[in-house]
Amino acid sequence: MLDALFKPKAVALIGASTKELSIGNVIIRNLQHYGYTGEIYPVNAKASEVCGLKSYATLTEIPGEIDLAHIIIPAQFVPQAMEECGQKGVKAVIINSAGFSEMGDEGARLQEEFLATARKYGIRVFGPNCQGIINSDPELNAYCNFTFTFPKPGSISVVALSGGVGALIMQVLDDLDIGQRLYASNGNACDVSIPEIIEYYGQDEGTNAIILYTEGFDKPREFLEVAREVTKKKPVLAMKSGRTEQGAKAASSHTGSLAGVDIATELIFEKVGVLPFHDEGEIVRAAMAFSSQPIPTGNRVGIITNTGGPAVIATDVLVDFDLDVPKLCEASIAKLRETQLPQAALENPIDVVATAGGPQFRAALDVMLDDDQIDCIYINFVTAPFTDTDAVAREIVEVSRQRRKPLVCNFMTNMKLERYQKTAAIMKEGEVPCYANPGDAARALGALVKYGRIQQRDIGQPQIFSDTKADMAKEIIEAARQAGREVLSAYEVYRIFEAYGIQVAPWQVVSNAGQAVAAASEIGYPVVVKVDCAEIDHKSDMGGVAINLKDAEAVRSTVVEMQQRLGTYGELGFLVQKFMPGGKELIIGASAERELGHLVMFGLGGIYVEVLKDVIFKVAPVTRVEAEEMLAGIKTAALLDGVRGEAGIDKQAVIEVIQRVSQLLGDLPMIQEMDLNPLMAFENSLFAVDGRIRI
Amino acid sequence: MLDALFKPKAVALIGASTKELSIGNVIIRNLQHYGYTGEIYPVNAKASEVCGLKSYATLTEIPGEIDLAHIIIPAQFVPQAMEECGQKGVKAVIINSAGFSEMGDEGARLQEEFLATARKYGIRVFGPNCQGIINSDPELNAYCNFTFTFPKPGSISVVALSGGVGALIMQVLDDLDIGQRLYASNGNACDVSIPEIIEYYGQDEGTNAIILYTEGFDKPREFLEVAREVTKKKPVLAMKSGRTEQGAKAASSHTGSLAGVDIATELIFEKVGVLPFHDEGEIVRAAMAFSSQPIPTGNRVGIITNTGGPAVIATDVLVDFDLDVPKLCEASIAKLRETQLPQAALENPIDVVATAGGPQFRAALDVMLDDDQIDCIYINFVTAPFTDTDAVAREIVEVSRQRRKPLVCNFMTNMKLERYQKTAAIMKEGEVPCYANPGDAARALGALVKYGRIQQRDIGQPQIFSDTKADMAKEIIEAARQAGREVLSAYEVYRIFEAYGIQVAPWQVVSNAGQAVAAASEIGYPVVVKVDCAEIDHKSDMGGVAINLKDAEAVRSTVVEMQQRLGTYGELGFLVQKFMPGGKELIIGASAERELGHLVMFGLGGIYVEVLKDVIFKVAPVTRVEAEEMLAGIKTAALLDGVRGEAGIDKQAVIEVIQRVSQLLGDLPMIQEMDLNPLMAFENSLFAVDGRIRI
Repeated sequence: MLDALFKPKAVALIGASTKELSIGNVIIRNLQHYGYTGEIYPVNAKASEVCGLKSYATLTEIPGEIDLAHIIIPAQFVPQAMEECGQKGVKAVIINSAGFSEMGDEGARLQEEFLATARKYGIRVFGPNCQGIINSDPELNAYCNFTFTFPKPGSISVVALSGGVGALIMQVLDDLDIGQRLYASNGNACDVSIPEIIEYYGQDEGTNAIILYTEGFDKPREFLEVAREVTKKKPVLAMKSGRTEQGAKAASSHTGSLAGVDIATELIFEKVGVLPFHDEGEIVRAAMAFSSQPIPTGNRVGIITNTGGPAVIATDVLVDFDLDVPKLCEASIAKLRETQLPQAALENPIDVVATAGGPQFRAALDVMLDDDQIDCIYINFVTAPFTDTDAVAREIVEVSRQRRKPLVCNFMTNMKLERYQKTAAIMKEGEVPCYANPGDAARALGALVKYGRIQQRDIGQPQIFSDTKADMAKEIIEAARQAGREVLSAYEVYRIFEAYGIQVAPWQVVSNAGQAVAAASEIGYPVVVKVDCAEIDHKSDMGGVAINLKDAEAVRSTVVEMQQRLGTYGELGFLVQKFMPGGKELIIGASAERELGHLVMFGLGGIYVEVLKDVIFKVAPVTRVEAEEMLAGIKTAALLDGVRGEAGIDKQAVIEVIQRVSQLLGDLPMIQEMDLNPLMAFENSLFAVDGRIRI
Repeated sequence: MLDALFKPKAVALIGASTKELSIGNVIIRNLQHYGYTGEIYPVNAKASEVCGLKSYATLTEIPGEIDLAHIIIPAQFVPQAMEECGQKGVKAVIINSAGFSEMGDEGARLQEEFLATARKYGIRVFGPNCQGIINSDPELNAYCNFTFTFPKPGSISVVALSGGVGALIMQVLDDLDIGQRLYASNGNACDVSIPEIIEYYGQDEGTNAIILYTEGFDKPREFLEVAREVTKKKPVLAMKSGRTEQGAKAASSHTGSLAGVDIATELIFEKVGVLPFHDEGEIVRAAMAFSSQPIPTGNRVGIITNTGGPAVIATDVLVDFDLDVPKLCEASIAKLRETQLPQAALENPIDVVATAGGPQFRAALDVMLDDDQIDCIYINFVTAPFTDTDAVAREIVEVSRQRRKPLVCNFMTNMKLERYQKTAAIMKEGEVPCYANPGDAARALGALVKYGRIQQRDIGQPQIFSDTKADMAKEIIEAARQAGREVLSAYEVYRIFEAYGIQVAPWQVVSNAGQAVAAASEIGYPVVVKVDCAEIDHKSDMGGVAINLKDAEAVRSTVVEMQQRLGTYGELGFLVQKFMPGGKELIIGASAERELGHLVMFGLGGIYVEVLKDVIFKVAPVTRVEAEEMLAGIKTAALLDGVRGEAGIDKQAVIEVIQRVSQLLGDLPMIQEMDLNPLMAFENSLFAVDGRIRI
């Protein structure tokens, strides 16, 4: 448990400093400023007092017990300090100092050294090269951090890989006057990990929503398992940056991790129901809505506006988020007709017009609450100079407090003017999520609706096919491994596919022209002949594939010609296979991701994958629901159903093969890359006609 | 000229009111509050004084001349008030009152009535159903508007179709402490139009940049012509909402215009070099960068950061905007090695680390200024508690003031703390464009770079092909028109195409099987036979097309069969045409847009247009550069060059046909819809094989 870290009764500062603006000084001042209710023990041999507190020459001199120690001294002294912490019985340390694994080998060695000591004593280590934690619980007020934002108590907890982004999120939440609960940014994360912190937030009763910023995970599987459980209890709003190659490079330079765009993290978010964001402002503004509003049960929004254009902008953005702006029912319109001003537009958006006061706004709100066609409410409220804006604000607050349907408000005003400050104060006290422009408000509501959809989505459990032959497949792979081969032969690949019930276009392996002709006549013409040789990896490019061979002579001459031309590469085998033209080319692929398991890919083959990159990935194991989402998710999904008079393909068969591939990958984790490319899909059948496995 | 409107020496208020919060009161208070230097004449028969000013019973009693009159009385009295304005010699009126064309027929009649009077007297009318104007010129301080934001003087002028959005833009600019010059929101725009206002802003010496918000234009051609000229002199930043069908519907409900998603406006933006935005926050934040920074000449950005994560986020967003984050040259890295702290990352992003002070920031900035690989600078500046943040701010300001390369700053701080307020004040006084998070700062810089690219783009003049036969085409269309036909026959369509030098697959029109066989043998097999009959519009669906007919017998039997089956529809003709398989299907289309002229569309045919909607539009006339952009702009552009061993197509021929189509449309404005679908494109040739023209 991380209570010693997040709920310390006493904090020591190894490296406390009398020098203003130094970290060893700032953290003590922050603890004092925030009103920390525990003991603060500066450790500094040269000073008798730091920030008005008695200073100790060493940890051992400190009279009381210490839950948590900050270590703020140069890296080379940290191992010794850790030893002293161990002897003193410190339960957790925050190492703010830098100069460890992020700085090369010597730093990594130091990190290993203090970590070994910490493990010996059972000390949990937070950091190094990090900010620290904050716990806003008014009973504690622990500000073990050198940042400069002092959040008011609330229910949103933040964890950030980057201290800079963490501090930014904390600041923007504070600017929006949103309370916060726990905060953590753990830098190199050599021991206490982000998944562990999320798990802790999940158990923390004061936390109602979690904001996560990351640039990827060292242990994605650990995150997946934790997040899967936490999202059942509370919303996790997350942003992963390093989306672009250059962004990933920038991330690797400051975390010391490997470069390369990581798509797995966002796929994990999707799998476990984390709400993903691409903008740091948006995540915080969404959190404001989450902190006071219920989750909508549908996507139908009622818009109330006292100004035209902002309703148009909001509608555009809401529609971008897949919200619907339905017509109101007749009863609703009748009620509006009774209650609204003559110039009002009694549609959705309801334009109550700029001269509308509290009664008109309230009547429109009540209509939206009562109309079964409406799941959530968007409000544009400009503080028109000729209305009682306070009265309008009070009505919005009252409706928001009912928590019958979630609402957000684009509140457009001039905060320099006293009369509108009062209106704003009413909205703020009433915890109405207010935004300064329509786009921001609409995106926040969009996030709520998206989360509602995520909550309702149940991907189910992976299906287990009992007709598979895992042992046989393992034997094939083990034999290849022992032979020192990374790339399996076509024979091996097809046998493995068949072991998992994946239908392969009829095939036989032969070693000469005569056998080839016999095989072809058994399979039935036309056939394909492919060279099968461990030394020839890209057989197409080498002229090792001949398609649509229609008779025995064609097969014979092809094999003979290949033997002559390619025989020098090694012993040649040949694969004779049924030629299957006229189907749709599909591709299913898989790749192993460090520590996570496999990603599975689906797409249409040929130009669709090559030119349009029109593919969908999922983290294995893939459930039926996820397989269905893969088919529905490609941009060219309509082609699977057939267009321009063409027949569609057997989608159920594809969905099953995706699941069988997923099971195969689970049984055979040593597979590094695999693809079925192409799979030929017909109206009532599906065949793998080529494949590749690398172990 | 609109000087009477924007530079009034005296303003009368017809409908001045003693009632607080009424529009007739608020406008007078706003004029007073803003320090209007001209005369204010309240007109109110019942009061002797309004807001401390002498009130007049009628306009005629006013002693002085009146440039501008607000009309704030109920709609039915406006025509009479206009008559009085005419008699008094008022030059311009702002009609704030609503109840005109936006409210149905009776309102439209009233609008026509006062407009006729205005024309009689040469009065320019602004509105009705509008806010008004603001001119921040300190010599004038004209606040002829009922809004509540009082902008400080500056160089950005705003014009907005929606008063709500206009007020929002003004407010957000003011919140960002950005000065403004002129403001206008003209509601129903029955006389003074948005294009006219933009033209006026273009001529206004105090205006350096223009922000436009619209939901479309009544007279798009007028806007196009005006904006084309204004963008040569100053940047126009524009947002058009109603992008989605539901958004367009919301727009039509408050403007009273027709619904329907209008894509033409954004195409005009592109054609004339207006910088487009989809977010109202983004446009204003970009304006902040435009107001103090030079336009970058390239897209290579140097990033300086004192915190890791925000640099990753910024990099992602900058890359989204097609910015490049190049490596620094060796000399730059050497200079950094001398000047930066040991923990600094000497790459791009340069991470000066959190402990960096003024000298480190300045040295990094100088490196970016001197490195020829860098066109613009992005800065993350978090006010780390252990540095002299004021010194950092001063260095950033100094570099910004040099105006050598544009820069933006993501300035992350806590404005509640006094010491950082001081740092912020230094940045603000130094006119450094500062943003509260990395995404916002990166998008603002992205907009600057995008505008630099727009400035450098020269679409050239439309090419005129002299081998065309406009008269012949006009005659064909005139004949069809006189025959009462809207849809042209295949014969007519092909003749028109050929009149414009667009090659059609060899064809002949015949009326019976014998002629068809003769034609086919002349054209050469295989051929296509299509029924050609005015009564049969969708000939494919009717079984009126037979392809790949390989011999005389096939042609004969096809014609006979069609005669039997389709003869009841009317007199049948037949088109015999060369069958041209194996090419790439392209589509070129055109549609007439109300008042604007034609939009021209290009895409790959078949599933690409049907399923992927992968098409590009341009406003005619289309220049060579624009035609090239059309080919390059489709998502499947790679297919035109050939993929998977296929040959590419003759792109130059396509580019020429697009231009010929454009010339055709210019000569034949009566064409409502036209398509060449498909055009069959081969490696060295291009043929229209079907087409349609509706007049």
